[in-house]
Amino acid sequence: MAQEGKRIDESRLTLSAVMGPQHTNNHGNVHGGVIMKMVDEAAGYAAMRHAGRPVVTVAVDSMTFMHPVHVRMLVLCRAELTCVGRKSMEIRVEVIAENPIEGTSQLTNTAYLVFVALGDDGRPVSVPPLIYETDEERHRAKLAEERQAYRKAQRAREQE
Amino acid sequence: MAQEGKRIDESRLTLSAVMGPQHTNNHGNVHGGVIMKMVDEAAGYAAMRHAGRPVVTVAVDSMTFMHPVHVRMLVLCRAELTCVGRKSMEIRVEVIAENPIEGTSQLTNTAYLVFVALGDDGRPVSVPPLIYETDEERHRAKLAEERQAYRKAQRAREQE
Amino acid sequence: MAQEGKRIDESRLTLSAVMGPQHTNNHGNVHGGVIMKMVDEAAGYAAMRHAGRPVVTVAVDSMTFMHPVHVRMLVLCRAELTCVGRKSMEIRVEVIAENPIEGTSQLTNTAYLVFVALGDDGRPVSVPPLIYETDEERHRAKLAEERQAYRKAQRAREQE
Amino acid sequence: MAQEGKRIDESRLTLSAVMGPQHTNNHGNVHGGVIMKMVDEAAGYAAMRHAGRPVVTVAVDSMTFMHPVHVRMLVLCRAELTCVGRKSMEIRVEVIAENPIEGTSQLTNTAYLVFVALGDDGRPVSVPPLIYETDEERHRAKLAEERQAYRKAQRAREQE
Amino acid sequence: MAQEGKRIDESRLTLSAVMGPQHTNNHGNVHGGVIMKMVDEAAGYAAMRHAGRPVVTVAVDSMTFMHPVHVRMLVLCRAELTCVGRKSMEIRVEVIAENPIEGTSQLTNTAYLVFVALGDDGRPVSVPPLIYETDEERHRAKLAEERQAYRKAQRAREQE
Amino acid sequence: MAQEGKRIDESRLTLSAVMGPQHTNNHGNVHGGVIMKMVDEAAGYAAMRHAGRPVVTVAVDSMTFMHPVHVRMLVLCRAELTCVGRKSMEIRVEVIAENPIEGTSQLTNTAYLVFVALGDDGRPVSVPPLIYETDEERHRAKLAEERQAYRKAQRAREQE
Repeated sequence: MAQEGKRIDESRLTLSAVMGPQHTNNHGNVHGGVIMKMVDEAAGYAAMRHAGRPVVTVAVDSMTFMHPVHVRMLVLCRAELTCVGRKSMEIRVEVIAENPIEGTSQLTNTAYLVFVALGDDGRPVSVPPLIYETDEERHRAKLAEERQAYRKAQRAREQE
Repeated sequence: MAQEGKRIDESRLTLSAVMGPQHTNNHGNVHGGVIMKMVDEAAGYAAMRHAGRPVVTVAVDSMTFMHPVHVRMLVLCRAELTCVGRKSMEIRVEVIAENPIEGTSQLTNTAYLVFVALGDDGRPVSVPPLIYETDEERHRAKLAEERQAYRKAQRAREQE
Repeated sequence: MAQEGKRIDESRLTLSAVMGPQHTNNHGNVHGGVIMKMVDEAAGYAAMRHAGRPVVTVAVDSMTFMHPVHVRMLVLCRAELTCVGRKSMEIRVEVIAENPIEGTSQLTNTAYLVFVALGDDGRPVSVPPLIYETDEERHRAKLAEERQAYRKAQRAREQE
Repeated sequence: MAQEGKRIDESRLTLSAVMGPQHTNNHGNVHGGVIMKMVDEAAGYAAMRHAGRPVVTVAVDSMTFMHPVHVRMLVLCRAELTCVGRKSMEIRVEVIAENPIEGTSQLTNTAYLVFVALGDDGRPVSVPPLIYETDEERHRAKLAEERQAYRKAQRAREQE
Repeated sequence: MAQEGKRIDESRLTLSAVMGPQHTNNHGNVHGGVIMKMVDEAAGYAAMRHAGRPVVTVAVDSMTFMHPVHVRMLVLCRAELTCVGRKSMEIRVEVIAENPIEGTSQLTNTAYLVFVALGDDGRPVSVPPLIYETDEERHRAKLAEERQAYRKAQRAREQE
Repeated sequence: MAQEGKRIDESRLTLSAVMGPQHTNNHGNVHGGVIMKMVDEAAGYAAMRHAGRPVVTVAVDSMTFMHPVHVRMLVLCRAELTCVGRKSMEIRVEVIAENPIEGTSQLTNTAYLVFVALGDDGRPVSVPPLIYETDEERHRAKLAEERQAYRKAQRAREQE
């Protein structure tokens, strides 16, 4: 029996945290690994909301680091689904860093992650279809499919 | 020269994080101290936004723990100013925990914290007045003043 | 059957830790949240000793931050019960910070916390009565009852 | 003046750590974010060795999660440069997890990361050329250039 | 000019912490490394109190692990100087673990550590003599000197 | 039935990690306790490989701190068995710190640790004999036996 679809805004999500000295790397900026972990959690939580089940990361790609993030900044990770396959979900995450004193903010990272949902036996299960409501959403889904095709080609190459 | 006032919604803020095994106490629930730290950060960030300056905590009170928070939940800490004195700001924080699988959420904690803003010399400085826009906001300010009076009476007693 | 009472000094307790760079906030002082977590642990451990059972925090109040704590200092959290109700215990915690080089120390925080003990089914259970031995202890118990009355009034207001 | 080239094996590197309970996610496996952070450190260290200067991450892509990693396993992150541009370096990382009791091991992740080296003024500087010694190395460099072209195309699209 | 001596009880010290799930190893007991770190901090703080200066660890030996420590236990690390040389101090640490529910406690570890005090230039400086007050203290000092002789012999061997 | 012997190189192991700001002590160097924890993990993993079973630390000794380790350095902990008794294993660990910018490295610590392997009932079990292949290995085993004799004498003294 087919599962009922869910809209993108039903699983959209923002994680937010204040950066402190324990998050810094050896340059005194926030460690790239700290941002990666937060991006993974935001994406995973959006995927869990869509699937209504536990999920695991299967790929991270196109993650960019455009600007350094500094201590005392508020980091916002906005995650939303772009596209779902039969058993996988692609999630786009935008990271925005805000300076509370100057009141300014800046897009510092974007990333695309792929998750699968797990059944009670720990194996991948199918997830609800994604309902697109705007042309923007449909456009993003098309780009997501191209990225997925590229991922498959890359993986094939790795295993040559 | 008097500082220009700021509205409550200019500094209102939500911190949000997914709880993992590293946040648990010896009962397997999220550690009260983890919630306290997150509440302190949310309140401090709202205070920094209002003051436009670094701030420090001077008091935490009326912090309640109504329901346990479990791993895998999303914790949201919503902070907003209730009242400002000449140099101090009271912030109310609500903590809401969401279960991503069941799609339910629950108010688990409330707390009131007091912060002061610091000048370049590390000493307290005056902060912008708070502009109230609704009766609800004015009512909360009145209760905040009563709490502040209670705090002073308590402190006097402690020093007897 | 009534439980046998316990004296305050049977559960009194000091936690102590040396503050390092991983405990600092964005001003280079020890993070308020670090102190809160340690205060919660000290109070919880004293409550466990009194109850002889696992416990959970139900409220934190009147927590003051009088002086900043710096790295390299020794922090001592002294916890003792002030008063017990049928199922709840109030614990007073004093935080003292010591400078090992100068040999000086200072009271930096006080706080009052309320805990309940949990039975095997995870529900609150009654705890042993508290035996007062000095006038000072009886005076503290009276103040604790006033705080408890204030807490109830506050909670009623929150739920209006 | 042109910088002298360096061979790939001059910067090749393995980071290795034993996974403990503090590294787990909500399924009891090692958190994807922990692996990402370790991958970022291994790649960054290889880049620093090649450049002889501090470096920062500018992109992470094609990171796959093929198998879960469990506590008690030894995780090995092998990082080596695949290709350098005028100011950027691509690093390939392989993650291998070993079970010490059973004596088995498995490739669990691969990833490609791009770093730039920073001059004393914090701005990107040119890095030594990479000397290829085997056909395998030259083949990898060709694939790296294709990935770099794809990254540029993706970035252009993001900014449309 | 000779420095004035200090008694052992002027620097004696207890660190104490409650063990939580974040302190466990892969057997579910408290990680040996967590105990080692706490022992090092207790010994270092006692050495700082005696020297009135920053200190660094130069050796750890004879550290035994007699019984496992479990989560929820209170760990007490009692540190006291046994003997001082011209520039070095030996500190004995006893670790005691207490079960708050059963009210029992047990000696779980002993260790001997050697520290030197650092001058403003970061080089070792001489420390105050140690004043012995009891036969027990004088006996411990004698054993400390034997350990120190053994350490020197060991070091010589390592460098053969 | 006698267990089959294993060579030293079957369990030899290197753990390696990049030191960051979260690893520093109050002098800005890497915390001695961080090194101790890593040494314990390296030794424990080598012991697990040899025994093919879970293990626990029973003693740490002759651990020296010859040079401070700084942030940004790569720390390598090389662990190998020196000698096995019926139920115990001695492991030697060498710590080497590498500066990636200058390309220099230095031996900073050595340590000897003793582990026992645990059976399914949590009690010590016998471990495979150690096969020596070189005179150097046989010489190290002889020194290990002397250390073990010294440990026993020390323990007897402690319990006097």
